[in-house]
Amino acid sequence: MSAPGSPVSAVRTPVDLPRANRLINHGPTVLVSAMHAGRRNVMAAAWSMPVEFEPPRIAVVIDKSTYTRELVLASGMLALNLPCAAIVDLAYTVGSVSGRDDDDADKFERYGIGRFDGPALGLPLVEGCVGWLECRVIREPHAEAAYDTFFCEVVSAQADARVFANGRWSLRDDNAALHTLHHLGAGLFALPARTLQATRLPAR
Amino acid sequence: MSAPGSPVSAVRTPVDLPRANRLINHGPTVLVSAMHAGRRNVMAAAWSMPVEFEPPRIAVVIDKSTYTRELVLASGMLALNLPCAAIVDLAYTVGSVSGRDDDDADKFERYGIGRFDGPALGLPLVEGCVGWLECRVIREPHAEAAYDTFFCEVVSAQADARVFANGRWSLRDDNAALHTLHHLGAGLFALPARTLQATRLPAR
Repeated sequence: MSAPGSPVSAVRTPVDLPRANRLINHGPTVLVSAMHAGRRNVMAAAWSMPVEFEPPRIAVVIDKSTYTRELVLASGMLALNLPCAAIVDLAYTVGSVSGRDDDDADKFERYGIGRFDGPALGLPLVEGCVGWLECRVIREPHAEAAYDTFFCEVVSAQADARVFANGRWSLRDDNAALHTLHHLGAGLFALPARTLQATRLPAR
Repeated sequence: MSAPGSPVSAVRTPVDLPRANRLINHGPTVLVSAMHAGRRNVMAAAWSMPVEFEPPRIAVVIDKSTYTRELVLASGMLALNLPCAAIVDLAYTVGSVSGRDDDDADKFERYGIGRFDGPALGLPLVEGCVGWLECRVIREPHAEAAYDTFFCEVVSAQADARVFANGRWSLRDDNAALHTLHHLGAGLFALPARTLQATRLPAR
């Protein structure tokens, strides 16, 4: 039997596209996965953000040195996968090694990473994550060259219903293993373990 | 005497520019402040990210409807201020009202927000925050128009040494009031209250 919060029992549920950006609104580390002509790869990216709610658009930074960038440019597609506390070592590892170092095994094989096909684009999505966004790249050669920034439209969104429900994250003590990762540097990640509801102040 | 973690006792310390992006690497909500020709404003922005470490560059989304955007475009400058748990209501409030609604008082006056001058550009920085970045906008009219995205170079960085030391966040139980805010939606914020050190996995 699996432990509470174990990735093997993920409850993958579609997220309405106008709410897809809620998945990354709070600044989690993402794993970028991509595929082209039978090759695939996955890397960690600390730097992504929504840029528009509807149509749902995001920006993500993908360094020129990465193998994933080659696949993204060749295919015009990428996926953002949101890793959680339960797979922190995996998230760190795929951000520390390059898929170009492969002899014949990609990172999915080298690290035994489970995957499933994205519903819209068939991209390789990472099992054990808690949210998944498939995206079409909106080609912006200048932003890509000058800032390594890729603008994308989100075309499918899913989340693990144990930690994202009714269009928002539900971060609780009993699902701590499913909390997103927020990279502080050098493999140290913060977890959004506490929440606080704000109220509006009156003007003076 | 002030409570532990009280904003009034901030220990503002310069952050080396190559490490400035560590301040927003983990995806916190930021307050964008700006000034032009004697007018000033501050707004909340959930959407920002680093795009390069050196030179330190960031991207931030500023909606076309905002008064802050007018000031940013007119001056070519903006500051990112990082609010913390102790001022969550203030952070939410300045993200919920427009500075354009002013009769004669800007948001600093209306809500009694303390401020001090940025060391490089003299921008109004928000007291009670735990990190401050002054930035020069790198004009990119297409990205600004199509994605509301402003690319900027960071020219000064400071942080509260009680929660950011030796170039990284130090998030502990005893400084919980100084933890950054990560917006989940509708005024609910996550706090990075727990940390986890990852280790690299061996290849199979």
